[in-house]
Amino acid sequence: MRAVDLIRRKRDSGELTSEEIHQLISAYTRGDIPDYQMSAWLMAVVLRGMTRAEIAALTEAMLHSGRVLDFSGLAGRKVDKHSTGGVGDKTSLVIAPIVAAGGLKVPMISGRGLGHSGGTLDKLESIPGFNVNLTLAEFQRVLETCGCALIGQTAEIAPADKKIYALRDVTGTVESPALICASIMSKKLAEGIDALVLDVKTGSGAFMKNLEDAAGLAELLVETGKRMGKKVVALLTDMNQPLGRAAGNAMEVAESIEALSGGGPTDLRELCLELAGWMFFLGERVKTVEEGKKLSTDLIASGQAREKFREIVGLQGGDIGAIDDPARLPHARHSVEIRSAADGFVASIQCEQLGVAGVVLGGGREKKEDKIDPAVGLEFHKRIGDRVERGEPLCTLHYNSDARLAEARRLVETAYSIAPHKPETIPPLIYRVIGA
Amino acid sequence: MRAVDLIRRKRDSGELTSEEIHQLISAYTRGDIPDYQMSAWLMAVVLRGMTRAEIAALTEAMLHSGRVLDFSGLAGRKVDKHSTGGVGDKTSLVIAPIVAAGGLKVPMISGRGLGHSGGTLDKLESIPGFNVNLTLAEFQRVLETCGCALIGQTAEIAPADKKIYALRDVTGTVESPALICASIMSKKLAEGIDALVLDVKTGSGAFMKNLEDAAGLAELLVETGKRMGKKVVALLTDMNQPLGRAAGNAMEVAESIEALSGGGPTDLRELCLELAGWMFFLGERVKTVEEGKKLSTDLIASGQAREKFREIVGLQGGDIGAIDDPARLPHARHSVEIRSAADGFVASIQCEQLGVAGVVLGGGREKKEDKIDPAVGLEFHKRIGDRVERGEPLCTLHYNSDARLAEARRLVETAYSIAPHKPETIPPLIYRVIGA
Repeated sequence: MRAVDLIRRKRDSGELTSEEIHQLISAYTRGDIPDYQMSAWLMAVVLRGMTRAEIAALTEAMLHSGRVLDFSGLAGRKVDKHSTGGVGDKTSLVIAPIVAAGGLKVPMISGRGLGHSGGTLDKLESIPGFNVNLTLAEFQRVLETCGCALIGQTAEIAPADKKIYALRDVTGTVESPALICASIMSKKLAEGIDALVLDVKTGSGAFMKNLEDAAGLAELLVETGKRMGKKVVALLTDMNQPLGRAAGNAMEVAESIEALSGGGPTDLRELCLELAGWMFFLGERVKTVEEGKKLSTDLIASGQAREKFREIVGLQGGDIGAIDDPARLPHARHSVEIRSAADGFVASIQCEQLGVAGVVLGGGREKKEDKIDPAVGLEFHKRIGDRVERGEPLCTLHYNSDARLAEARRLVETAYSIAPHKPETIPPLIYRVIGA
Repeated sequence: MRAVDLIRRKRDSGELTSEEIHQLISAYTRGDIPDYQMSAWLMAVVLRGMTRAEIAALTEAMLHSGRVLDFSGLAGRKVDKHSTGGVGDKTSLVIAPIVAAGGLKVPMISGRGLGHSGGTLDKLESIPGFNVNLTLAEFQRVLETCGCALIGQTAEIAPADKKIYALRDVTGTVESPALICASIMSKKLAEGIDALVLDVKTGSGAFMKNLEDAAGLAELLVETGKRMGKKVVALLTDMNQPLGRAAGNAMEVAESIEALSGGGPTDLRELCLELAGWMFFLGERVKTVEEGKKLSTDLIASGQAREKFREIVGLQGGDIGAIDDPARLPHARHSVEIRSAADGFVASIQCEQLGVAGVVLGGGREKKEDKIDPAVGLEFHKRIGDRVERGEPLCTLHYNSDARLAEARRLVETAYSIAPHKPETIPPLIYRVIGA
């Protein structure tokens, strides 16, 4: 196999065999194929696409580039959830404890914030002491002890994905359904799970702005997971506005604790119940999704879900006191309100801009090396369709440094469109379920 | 400017400004942009194309990445010829001396063999002692002394092209009219010439197999050259069969000496007269192309062209004795004839296979580091449309090692198609002239 021949074949819209894809990925992971050949191949993939068989082969090659965890010795089905990312999307922090409290195992390997979108690891690290960098042995021990553990991708898990992802990020080859699918599924399947619920987001704050693109990706993810013998469904959900009322690492942990305590914003609560319901159903803990939602509601009401979160935080070195009293989480020193310039209704929200505003305030990274400020974030007061009066707050910015405050303000101010009439359609929370 | 943004723009079929292209090329040449970003951008260019304005900007950026020679102090117009390459294409060795003998200056920077196609530098180096690695000062001195000098691309000339070309070769990004055009024209315009005649080859032995693709490239080359204020025409010529009767470095030098002495194969002689005629015309030495062809014929007949070649060889350190007596050029020790398996007519020739056979015998390189054998090569006895009897020789292989002889034989045997009837159309030598 010569790498240049595989690049040329893909460039000319040809198909690679499973064997060739495995050779390409393992040679690249070993360092026998240089970055400049891989990036040319990736660009050809972005522009020419891949067949379903190629995507399955790529996923498998990336999966088997590292360790595939095996928790078959552990009692109970192993289930996980993955979201394609958005603004204020903190459901992992809520549903992982719910599902573990319900008796299933949740071995969750998560990511960091990416672009305008937040990441579970960054949120968890806003809890003082919380350690997301467990070894695989520690990961297994926490999982055994409390049914759930939350860590980042280790060097042993899908190293090919880690290397390829870093390359895609700087070569304009992120936006490919085939590459996105292989990246997500290779990591998730390495967790040794039986079932996976996918939350594929669409709208102005998602990576896939367009509903049909998102549906295409969801189908691809589901099919690829099923080919590998896993139970998989995808919920196609809305990201035309932030999820919940908070975006910002510590602020989202606080809101998750609210939701685990039976409160929190309606949209966040509803989506969490739906996702957890599906996890219970695919994990064969219940007979129907409705039953799974009911179980989730009960686990919140009884306090077991919140208690499970406390347990996880404790086992991973975090300050339990901050869970009991969220006032102990990091708080920003300053705040400023962005007010409506007109009377009317919120017609639409440029949700990605809100995410970028959070990054600009220091809550996310523009370069890999950037340190993030866990305390800063945005608090949302109005949703699409809400009545608003001139001068009424739309959003509050919580910040520590005013170095780039003007930029963040401008982003938030221009993100909201106010119209004189109530919009005819308000985006639903969930569009449809794929693969059920 | 962030490289990733320019990559993404081209990926999405957008246009880059001249300023952006200049920044990209100069940052890459300096080493500030890594190979893996450049190769992703190159693949996006291959698949999305470039506008005429982008191609002009790229050509200029690559041209100005190094020294642009200035021979304006030298009397006489400076003209050159460039061929896109083929099998047995030795016209440079014939026309450079003719045109210099006619009073114009020919500062020719040439290339080495590439794939199945031969290169002027490799041919010249089969003359014992001939030095193609002159410094730019020596190049100028030889040019001043005899009106012509023949060298390879130095580190000072279009270093961006040198770096990008090496990358394209290993990343499947060679086949792009935009990139081919910028590569050719940046080097040729760096020679400080007033006029350029392009020989764009098409057919089974050319890089552009298809006539319309070749015509498109020819138009692009001519337009780009004219934008830069040069006089440029392109001859679209046939490469469905080898040019002349010999392919192989020393064998082609011998055939070129024949042509310079008034003999040689008809097709070679005709094409040389046509190309030299156009060079004299664009160099304003004559009033019409016909007059230029007549002048070329006279310069051969008078012996001045051959004498000019002797002079160049002498000034560049080569053995003049080998020009006076081509028997002193390297000769292969063995030969074998490939004979026709049937009575009939030569219907078509897979000309690229003949070129590859020459490489397999050791006359070209498969990897950059390969040493070539100047003596080996192929001698052609039949052209398309020729009558051939069963057992009659089609081609003679001249070789020194039989290590890969079987492979070369098979390539040559399967290159010729023999049909019972004379083919209805025989490819013309020249299809048309573009830009006249």
